[in-house]
Amino acid sequence: MEAPTERSLGIVEPRTEHFEEPLRLACGRDFGPYDLVYETYGALNDDCSNAVLICHALSGHHHAAGYHSEADRKPGWWNACIGPGKPIDTDRFFVVSLNNLGGCHGSTGPASPNPDTGRPWGPDFPPLRVRDWVHSQKRLADRLGIARWAAVIGGSLGGMQAMRWALEYPDMVEHCVVIASAMKLSAQNIAFNEIARHAIQSDPDFSEGRYLERECVPAQGLALARMVGHITYLSDDAMANKFGRDLRSGTLERGDEESVEFQVQSYLRYQGNQFSGSFDANTYILMTRALDYFDLAREYGDDPVAAFARAKCSFLVISFSTDWRFSPQRSREIVDALIAADRPVSYAEIEASEGHDAFLLALPRYRDLFRAYMQRVGGGSQ
Amino acid sequence: MEAPTERSLGIVEPRTEHFEEPLRLACGRDFGPYDLVYETYGALNDDCSNAVLICHALSGHHHAAGYHSEADRKPGWWNACIGPGKPIDTDRFFVVSLNNLGGCHGSTGPASPNPDTGRPWGPDFPPLRVRDWVHSQKRLADRLGIARWAAVIGGSLGGMQAMRWALEYPDMVEHCVVIASAMKLSAQNIAFNEIARHAIQSDPDFSEGRYLERECVPAQGLALARMVGHITYLSDDAMANKFGRDLRSGTLERGDEESVEFQVQSYLRYQGNQFSGSFDANTYILMTRALDYFDLAREYGDDPVAAFARAKCSFLVISFSTDWRFSPQRSREIVDALIAADRPVSYAEIEASEGHDAFLLALPRYRDLFRAYMQRVGGGSQ
Repeated sequence: MEAPTERSLGIVEPRTEHFEEPLRLACGRDFGPYDLVYETYGALNDDCSNAVLICHALSGHHHAAGYHSEADRKPGWWNACIGPGKPIDTDRFFVVSLNNLGGCHGSTGPASPNPDTGRPWGPDFPPLRVRDWVHSQKRLADRLGIARWAAVIGGSLGGMQAMRWALEYPDMVEHCVVIASAMKLSAQNIAFNEIARHAIQSDPDFSEGRYLERECVPAQGLALARMVGHITYLSDDAMANKFGRDLRSGTLERGDEESVEFQVQSYLRYQGNQFSGSFDANTYILMTRALDYFDLAREYGDDPVAAFARAKCSFLVISFSTDWRFSPQRSREIVDALIAADRPVSYAEIEASEGHDAFLLALPRYRDLFRAYMQRVGGGSQ
Repeated sequence: MEAPTERSLGIVEPRTEHFEEPLRLACGRDFGPYDLVYETYGALNDDCSNAVLICHALSGHHHAAGYHSEADRKPGWWNACIGPGKPIDTDRFFVVSLNNLGGCHGSTGPASPNPDTGRPWGPDFPPLRVRDWVHSQKRLADRLGIARWAAVIGGSLGGMQAMRWALEYPDMVEHCVVIASAMKLSAQNIAFNEIARHAIQSDPDFSEGRYLERECVPAQGLALARMVGHITYLSDDAMANKFGRDLRSGTLERGDEESVEFQVQSYLRYQGNQFSGSFDANTYILMTRALDYFDLAREYGDDPVAAFARAKCSFLVISFSTDWRFSPQRSREIVDALIAADRPVSYAEIEASEGHDAFLLALPRYRDLFRAYMQRVGGGSQ
């Protein structure tokens, strides 16, 4: 069989599902009604056996592949891996990608109106755990007529959702793909998230989370949070390759420091400012907290083997050599627990210089391996 | 010979030297008059051959060892390595430790009054380079009657000063001890410094650097800057050992997030707030810029071997296995260049879980090795 030719997914369109019945959250509160915005790529087959769920990471959303219009300059965030002939092949699979509850791209979140007050939820939006997202995704599956996912797939925070799916609904998951993720964060990871939250919360424009009511946004704090995140998602080597020590302008000798900047400085400031214009600060806080609190095995006596013993699916685990935020060691811990729990698992550590961000990129070995695994995933409908 | 018994240095007292004549800075400006505050430990011998210079790092100062009063709870920042019987043995050496120009612990810096206006220098304080510190330290040496240092010693930014001493005044340095340092920063290092500066400068209380005139301080920004620094000075393992995932209080389930915090969060906030109450924001900006701009070999055609060919001293280079801010690789680059330049060099990579901060600690192997080297350093006066 020849390797399939990759093609563009073309124009895709988001849809919204409204859920009237409240969802019981991990925090004990019942939340609802709420909306979930999502996109689908490819066609659901007759026996509804080819559906794949994409779970997004910290700053992700439902728009994972394709373009929203002809004028769109950038495709969805995982266009490298989703599309006709790509690892998640939309000629074979019906791909569902949603914006999680609490998000800021169309699903109900802190920027949505609180029906009790008519004002934005802001800081009163309930705290969410990864399991809450899984439960809300289950409802979306029900609505779409999907009784079992051919695969649940995610990178980073998305990988945490995929693992939680395998434990919460073991009969609904055939394959679980966990990329650049971990069973829980390290203290260092939590510390970086804490800095991000602190940057946002100490911005006077944060107004204790009620910035939307005051028609301002904590732009500086959010930009700083993004800058911190951005550095930690790149490897030192990747930054060196990208910027080196090039000066943007000016000379070192003259001491006119305002006119001299390292390229990395202007790049970071640009990235930070772009992000703070497009992301909701309360959502960022909510999502980093979900990351921090995720602990796959906590309710299984802190025993990952006992946790994974519940799972009935096959696993693919992928890590990247220079990822220091979610290091290969964290993935090997997942693999070790899966083996001890006698679950089928494939593992690959991909040599890549790009750090954590590698999971979003079109790296040949990564995509070849990912594609090969997905070809083993059932539900082919053609 | 028995290993010397370590004793306490006891009470030490800072002194100040006033320099009337302006100093020509790398930026082209002449700066002065100015004061340098410093401490000395031990006694200068008759032929003035036992003097050792300690160069401080980013947030350091002159108070490197001993106590300022009986009530002092903490000794100087390098008390682990400086004192009677310690690696830098004050029974043998006359140790000089100063607060660098531009600092905020007594030497003239951005918080000092600008004689032209009577108001604090603030952002008008000239930018400094590592070489400016070396030149100002040379003047202090002249004042103290020290024509040649038995050793110039520093960790991190202090190691950069020690290396620069070896090139600027080759006849004045007998031994150069460079700990956890680098010939220049990586892009990632610069990026972290940029975040620290951005945090300070985007704090509304920064007031474009004129906060002292307005009787406020950018406390939140400075705390954030310190938090970023703090994380990067610790290894992931060190943080894990220190905090793990212990909760300070509350439970995950109740969703009362305000009452639930990871220990690392409260620790970081405490560290940040402590720092912002005791350090000057403009000094922090000035010192991180000096770090960013340091490039040992730039004026030697970017050839470190050509640079070190100027040196006439022996070198000790030390790195720590889990230091990811100034990794062992950066130290090995120094060693390789020294070997290629035919300079005498000893190198040790110390196994330590504490990251960059290890250089401040009383780790047995580190201190044994450091002590053994220092016993070879001449000028013993007893």
